[in-house]
Amino acid sequence: MELALEEAELAFREDEVPVGAVVVMSGKVVGRGRNRRERLRLVTSHAEIEAIQKASRTLGTWRLENCDIYVTLEPCPMCAGAIIQARIKRLVFGAYDPKGGAAGGVVDLLGQKLFNHRVDVIGGILEERCSQTLKKYFTIKRNAEKRRGG
Amino acid sequence: MELALEEAELAFREDEVPVGAVVVMSGKVVGRGRNRRERLRLVTSHAEIEAIQKASRTLGTWRLENCDIYVTLEPCPMCAGAIIQARIKRLVFGAYDPKGGAAGGVVDLLGQKLFNHRVDVIGGILEERCSQTLKKYFTIKRNAEKRRGG
Repeated sequence: MELALEEAELAFREDEVPVGAVVVMSGKVVGRGRNRRERLRLVTSHAEIEAIQKASRTLGTWRLENCDIYVTLEPCPMCAGAIIQARIKRLVFGAYDPKGGAAGGVVDLLGQKLFNHRVDVIGGILEERCSQTLKKYFTIKRNAEKRRGG
Repeated sequence: MELALEEAELAFREDEVPVGAVVVMSGKVVGRGRNRRERLRLVTSHAEIEAIQKASRTLGTWRLENCDIYVTLEPCPMCAGAIIQARIKRLVFGAYDPKGGAAGGVVDLLGQKLFNHRVDVIGGILEERCSQTLKKYFTIKRNAEKRRGG
Protein backbone atom coordinates (compact mmCIF):
# COMPACT_ATOMS: atom_id res chain seq x y z
CA MET A 1 0.00 0.00 0.00
CA GLU A 2 2.99 2.28 0.53
CA LEU A 3 3.84 1.86 -3.16
CA ALA A 4 0.23 2.54 -4.16
CA LEU A 5 0.40 5.74 -2.08
CA GLU A 6 3.60 6.70 -3.92
CA GLU A 7 1.72 6.33 -7.20
CA ALA A 8 -1.15 8.44 -5.82
CA GLU A 9 1.39 11.09 -4.88
CA LEU A 10 2.70 11.11 -8.47
CA ALA A 11 -0.88 11.51 -9.78
CA PHE A 12 -1.34 14.40 -7.33
CA ARG A 13 1.71 16.17 -8.73
CA GLU A 14 0.34 15.62 -12.25
CA ASP A 15 -2.93 17.34 -11.23
CA GLU A 16 -4.96 14.14 -11.45
CA VAL A 17 -7.35 12.76 -8.83
CA PRO A 18 -4.67 11.05 -6.71
CA VAL A 19 -5.30 7.33 -6.81
CA GLY A 20 -2.56 4.71 -7.05
CA ALA A 21 -2.56 0.94 -7.52
CA VAL A 22 -0.07 -1.91 -7.43
CA VAL A 23 -0.46 -5.54 -8.58
CA VAL A 24 1.59 -8.05 -6.60
CA MET A 25 2.35 -11.73 -7.27
CA SER A 26 4.17 -13.84 -4.67
CA GLY A 27 5.39 -10.72 -2.91
CA LYS A 28 6.73 -9.20 -6.14
CA VAL A 29 5.35 -6.08 -7.81
CA VAL A 30 4.29 -6.95 -11.38
CA GLY A 31 2.38 -3.76 -12.25
CA ARG A 32 2.05 -0.22 -10.93
CA GLY A 33 -0.46 2.37 -12.04
CA ARG A 34 -1.85 5.77 -11.23
CA ASN A 35 -4.82 7.75 -12.41
CA ARG A 36 -3.96 9.50 -15.67
CA ARG A 37 -7.43 10.22 -16.96
CA GLU A 38 -6.95 13.91 -17.70
CA ARG A 39 -3.47 13.59 -19.15
CA LEU A 40 -4.40 10.71 -21.47
CA ARG A 41 -8.01 11.84 -21.98
CA LEU A 42 -9.18 8.29 -21.41
CA VAL A 43 -11.74 7.20 -18.83
CA THR A 44 -10.04 3.84 -18.78
CA SER A 45 -6.83 5.29 -17.39
CA HIS A 46 -7.80 4.74 -13.77
CA ALA A 47 -4.99 3.51 -11.51
CA GLU A 48 -6.31 -0.07 -11.27
CA ILE A 49 -6.69 -0.49 -15.04
CA GLU A 50 -3.21 0.88 -15.65
CA ALA A 51 -1.74 -1.48 -13.02
CA ILE A 52 -3.68 -4.48 -14.38
CA GLN A 53 -2.57 -3.74 -17.95
CA LYS A 54 1.05 -3.47 -16.84
CA ALA A 55 0.81 -6.71 -14.84
CA SER A 56 -0.68 -8.46 -17.90
CA ARG A 57 2.21 -7.24 -20.01
CA THR A 58 4.75 -8.31 -17.36
CA LEU A 59 3.26 -11.79 -17.04
CA GLY A 60 2.21 -12.20 -20.70
CA THR A 61 -1.36 -13.16 -19.86
CA TRP A 62 -4.67 -11.51 -19.01
CA ARG A 63 -5.18 -14.09 -16.25
CA LEU A 64 -3.89 -12.66 -12.97
CA GLU A 65 -5.18 -15.53 -10.83
CA ASN A 66 -2.35 -15.50 -8.31
CA CYS A 67 -2.19 -11.76 -7.99
CA ASP A 68 -3.40 -9.29 -5.38
CA ILE A 69 -4.16 -5.65 -6.10
CA TYR A 70 -3.55 -2.78 -3.67
CA VAL A 71 -5.42 0.46 -4.37
CA THR A 72 -5.58 3.69 -2.36
CA LEU A 73 -9.33 4.11 -3.05
CA GLU A 74 -12.24 1.69 -3.23
CA PRO A 75 -12.62 0.80 -6.94
CA CYS A 76 -15.41 2.10 -9.16
CA PRO A 77 -17.58 -0.45 -11.09
CA MET A 78 -15.29 -0.30 -14.16
CA CYS A 79 -12.21 -1.16 -12.11
CA ALA A 80 -14.03 -3.70 -9.94
CA GLY A 81 -15.20 -5.31 -13.19
CA ALA A 82 -11.64 -5.38 -14.53
CA ILE A 83 -10.48 -7.01 -11.27
CA ILE A 84 -13.13 -9.73 -11.74
CA GLN A 85 -12.28 -10.16 -15.44
CA ALA A 86 -8.59 -10.55 -14.59
CA ARG A 87 -9.47 -13.18 -11.92
CA ILE A 88 -7.46 -11.28 -9.30
CA LYS A 89 -7.42 -13.13 -5.98
CA ARG A 90 -7.52 -10.34 -3.48
CA LEU A 91 -8.27 -6.63 -3.39
CA VAL A 92 -6.81 -4.49 -0.62
CA PHE A 93 -7.94 -0.88 -0.62
CA GLY A 94 -7.39 2.22 1.52
CA ALA A 95 -10.14 4.84 1.54
CA TYR A 96 -13.81 3.91 1.24
CA ASP A 97 -15.88 5.57 -1.50
CA PRO A 98 -19.52 5.77 -0.37
CA LYS A 99 -20.50 7.67 -3.54
CA GLY A 100 -18.81 5.59 -6.23
CA GLY A 101 -17.43 2.40 -4.71
CA ALA A 102 -18.22 -1.03 -6.12
CA ALA A 103 -16.76 -2.99 -3.21
CA GLY A 104 -19.65 -2.19 -0.90
CA GLY A 105 -19.82 1.62 -1.19
CA VAL A 106 -22.69 1.82 -3.68
CA VAL A 107 -22.84 -1.79 -4.86
CA ASP A 108 -20.84 -4.89 -4.03
CA LEU A 109 -19.64 -6.55 -7.22
CA LEU A 110 -16.71 -8.38 -5.66
CA GLY A 111 -17.47 -10.03 -2.33
CA GLN A 112 -20.41 -12.12 -3.45
CA LYS A 113 -20.08 -14.61 -6.26
CA LEU A 114 -22.37 -12.68 -8.57
CA PHE A 115 -20.15 -13.37 -11.55
CA ASN A 116 -17.91 -16.31 -12.36
CA HIS A 117 -15.22 -15.14 -9.96
CA ARG A 118 -15.23 -13.96 -6.36
CA VAL A 119 -12.55 -11.64 -5.00
CA ASP A 120 -11.39 -11.47 -1.37
CA VAL A 121 -11.70 -7.86 -0.22
CA ILE A 122 -9.99 -6.01 2.61
CA GLY A 123 -10.85 -2.31 2.95
CA GLY A 124 -9.57 0.51 5.17
CA ILE A 125 -5.82 -0.26 5.04
CA LEU A 126 -3.84 2.97 5.64
CA GLU A 127 -7.25 4.57 5.23
CA GLU A 128 -6.35 7.86 6.90
CA ARG A 129 -3.34 8.54 4.69
CA CYS A 130 -5.15 7.40 1.53
CA SER A 131 -8.13 9.65 2.15
CA GLN A 132 -5.96 12.60 3.29
CA THR A 133 -4.24 12.62 -0.12
CA LEU A 134 -7.64 12.78 -1.83
CA LYS A 135 -9.00 15.43 0.55
CA LYS A 136 -5.93 17.61 0.02
CA TYR A 137 -6.44 17.39 -3.76
CA PHE A 138 -10.13 18.29 -3.66
CA THR A 139 -9.55 21.17 -1.19
CA ILE A 140 -6.97 22.70 -3.54
CA LYS A 141 -9.36 22.25 -6.50
CA ARG A 142 -12.27 23.85 -4.64
CA ASN A 143 -10.17 26.81 -3.54
CA ALA A 144 -8.94 27.33 -7.11
CA GLU A 145 -12.59 27.28 -8.32
CA LYS A 146 -13.53 29.85 -5.67
CA ARG A 147 -10.68 32.12 -6.71
CA ARG A 148 -11.96 31.91 -10.28
CA GLY A 149 -15.39 32.83 -8.91
CA GLY A 150 -16.78 29.42 -9.89
CA MET B 1 -25.86 -2.27 -34.82
CA GLU B 2 -24.99 -3.56 -38.28
CA LEU B 3 -21.51 -2.06 -37.86
CA ALA B 4 -21.18 -3.57 -34.38
CA LEU B 5 -22.09 -6.95 -35.91
CA GLU B 6 -19.38 -6.42 -38.55
CA GLU B 7 -16.88 -5.90 -35.74
CA ALA B 8 -18.13 -9.04 -33.98
CA GLU B 9 -17.62 -10.94 -37.24
CA LEU B 10 -14.02 -9.71 -37.39
CA ALA B 11 -13.47 -10.87 -33.78
CA PHE B 12 -14.95 -14.25 -34.76
CA ARG B 13 -12.42 -14.61 -37.58
CA GLU B 14 -9.64 -13.73 -35.13
CA ASP B 15 -10.77 -16.55 -32.83
CA GLU B 16 -12.00 -14.18 -30.14
CA VAL B 17 -15.38 -14.25 -28.38
CA PRO B 18 -17.29 -12.35 -31.09
CA VAL B 19 -18.47 -9.08 -29.61
CA GLY B 20 -18.44 -5.76 -31.45
CA ALA B 21 -19.17 -2.18 -30.43
CA VAL B 22 -19.58 1.20 -32.10
CA VAL B 23 -19.72 4.68 -30.55
CA VAL B 24 -21.86 7.17 -32.44
CA MET B 25 -22.22 10.95 -32.07
CA SER B 26 -24.87 12.87 -34.04
CA GLY B 27 -25.25 9.96 -36.43
CA LYS B 28 -21.51 9.72 -37.08
CA VAL B 29 -19.31 6.79 -36.03
CA VAL B 30 -16.52 8.11 -33.78
CA GLY B 31 -15.14 4.79 -32.50
CA ARG B 32 -15.34 1.10 -33.41
CA GLY B 33 -14.08 -1.81 -31.36
CA ARG B 34 -14.09 -5.56 -31.11
CA ASN B 35 -13.06 -8.02 -28.47
CA ARG B 36 -9.29 -8.61 -28.71
CA ARG B 37 -8.64 -10.02 -25.25
CA GLU B 38 -6.72 -13.11 -26.36
CA ARG B 39 -4.70 -11.41 -29.08
CA LEU B 40 -3.65 -8.49 -26.85
CA ARG B 41 -3.64 -10.55 -23.62
CA LEU B 42 -5.49 -7.76 -21.88
CA VAL B 43 -8.78 -8.14 -20.02
CA THR B 44 -9.48 -4.54 -20.81
CA SER B 45 -9.64 -5.21 -24.56
CA HIS B 46 -13.37 -5.85 -24.61
CA ALA B 47 -15.22 -4.36 -27.60
CA GLU B 48 -16.83 -1.54 -25.60
CA ILE B 49 -13.55 -0.37 -24.04
CA GLU B 50 -11.80 -0.42 -27.41
CA ALA B 51 -14.63 1.59 -28.99
CA ILE B 52 -14.72 4.08 -26.09
CA GLN B 53 -10.95 4.56 -26.21
CA LYS B 54 -11.10 5.17 -29.96
CA ALA B 55 -13.99 7.62 -29.58
CA SER B 56 -12.03 9.50 -26.88
CA ARG B 57 -9.07 9.74 -29.22
CA THR B 58 -11.28 10.90 -32.11
CA LEU B 59 -12.98 13.57 -30.00
CA GLY B 60 -9.95 14.50 -27.86
CA THR B 61 -11.81 14.07 -24.58
CA TRP B 62 -12.81 11.33 -22.15
CA ARG B 63 -16.28 12.89 -21.90
CA LEU B 64 -18.60 11.22 -24.40
CA GLU B 65 -21.73 12.98 -23.18
CA ASN B 66 -23.45 13.24 -26.54
CA CYS B 67 -22.55 9.75 -27.67
CA ASP B 68 -24.47 6.49 -27.90
CA ILE B 69 -22.84 3.07 -27.84
CA TYR B 70 -24.08 0.04 -29.80
CA VAL B 71 -22.87 -3.36 -28.61
CA THR B 72 -23.76 -6.84 -29.81
CA LEU B 73 -23.82 -8.24 -26.24
CA GLU B 74 -25.04 -6.85 -22.91
CA PRO B 75 -21.96 -5.29 -21.26
CA CYS B 76 -20.10 -6.82 -18.30
CA PRO B 77 -19.59 -4.69 -15.14
CA MET B 78 -16.20 -3.41 -16.39
CA CYS B 79 -17.69 -2.15 -19.64
CA ALA B 80 -20.87 -0.87 -18.00
CA GLY B 81 -18.61 1.00 -15.57
CA ALA B 82 -16.62 2.47 -18.47
CA ILE B 83 -19.88 3.58 -20.13
CA ILE B 84 -20.85 5.39 -16.89
CA GLN B 85 -17.37 6.91 -16.48
CA ALA B 86 -17.48 8.20 -20.06
CA ARG B 87 -20.95 9.72 -19.42
CA ILE B 88 -22.33 8.00 -22.51
CA LYS B 89 -25.96 8.95 -23.09
CA ARG B 90 -27.45 5.75 -24.41
CA LEU B 91 -26.56 2.08 -24.61
CA VAL B 92 -28.16 -0.09 -27.30
CA PHE B 93 -27.29 -3.78 -27.08
CA GLY B 94 -28.21 -6.95 -28.96
CA ALA B 95 -28.02 -10.23 -27.04
CA TYR B 96 -28.83 -10.44 -23.33
CA ASP B 97 -26.24 -11.97 -20.97
CA PRO B 98 -28.02 -13.52 -17.98
CA LYS B 99 -24.72 -14.85 -16.58
CA GLY B 100 -22.51 -11.80 -16.85
CA GLY B 101 -24.58 -8.77 -17.84
CA ALA B 102 -24.50 -5.52 -15.90
CA ALA B 103 -27.48 -3.95 -17.66
CA GLY B 104 -30.01 -6.11 -15.84
CA GLY B 105 -28.60 -9.61 -16.50
CA VAL B 106 -26.87 -10.10 -13.14
CA VAL B 107 -26.92 -6.54 -11.82
CA ASP B 108 -28.19 -3.25 -13.19
CA LEU B 109 -25.51 -0.60 -12.97
CA LEU B 110 -26.87 1.60 -15.72
CA GLY B 111 -30.60 2.13 -15.61
CA GLN B 112 -30.87 3.42 -12.07
CA LYS B 113 -28.97 6.47 -10.96
CA LEU B 114 -26.72 4.51 -8.60
CA PHE B 115 -23.69 6.52 -9.61
CA ASN B 116 -23.34 10.11 -10.75
CA HIS B 117 -24.62 9.31 -14.22
CA ARG B 118 -27.59 7.38 -15.57
CA VAL B 119 -27.55 5.75 -19.00
CA ASP B 120 -30.62 5.10 -21.19
CA VAL B 121 -30.65 1.42 -22.08
CA ILE B 122 -32.32 -0.43 -24.95
CA GLY B 123 -31.69 -4.17 -25.12
CA GLY B 124 -32.58 -6.89 -27.62
CA ILE B 125 -31.89 -5.00 -30.87
CA LEU B 126 -31.02 -7.50 -33.66
CA GLU B 127 -30.90 -9.93 -30.74
CA GLU B 128 -31.22 -13.08 -32.82
CA ARG B 129 -28.30 -12.27 -35.12
CA CYS B 130 -26.13 -11.04 -32.24
CA SER B 131 -26.67 -14.18 -30.19
CA GLN B 132 -26.33 -16.50 -33.22
CA THR B 133 -22.80 -15.18 -33.81
CA LEU B 134 -21.91 -15.98 -30.20
CA LYS B 135 -23.60 -19.41 -30.28
CA LYS B 136 -21.75 -20.34 -33.47
CA TYR B 137 -18.44 -19.42 -31.83
CA PHE B 138 -19.07 -21.41 -28.64
CA THR B 139 -20.34 -24.44 -30.59
CA ILE B 140 -17.12 -24.52 -32.64
CA LYS B 141 -15.05 -24.14 -29.45
CA ARG B 142 -16.92 -26.96 -27.69
CA ASN B 143 -16.59 -29.30 -30.66
CA ALA B 144 -12.85 -28.57 -30.85
CA GLU B 145 -12.56 -29.38 -27.12
CA LYS B 146 -14.42 -32.66 -27.64
CA ARG B 147 -12.13 -33.63 -30.50
CA ARG B 148 -9.18 -33.00 -28.19
CA GLY B 149 -10.94 -35.23 -25.64
CA GLY B 150 -11.42 -32.29 -23.27
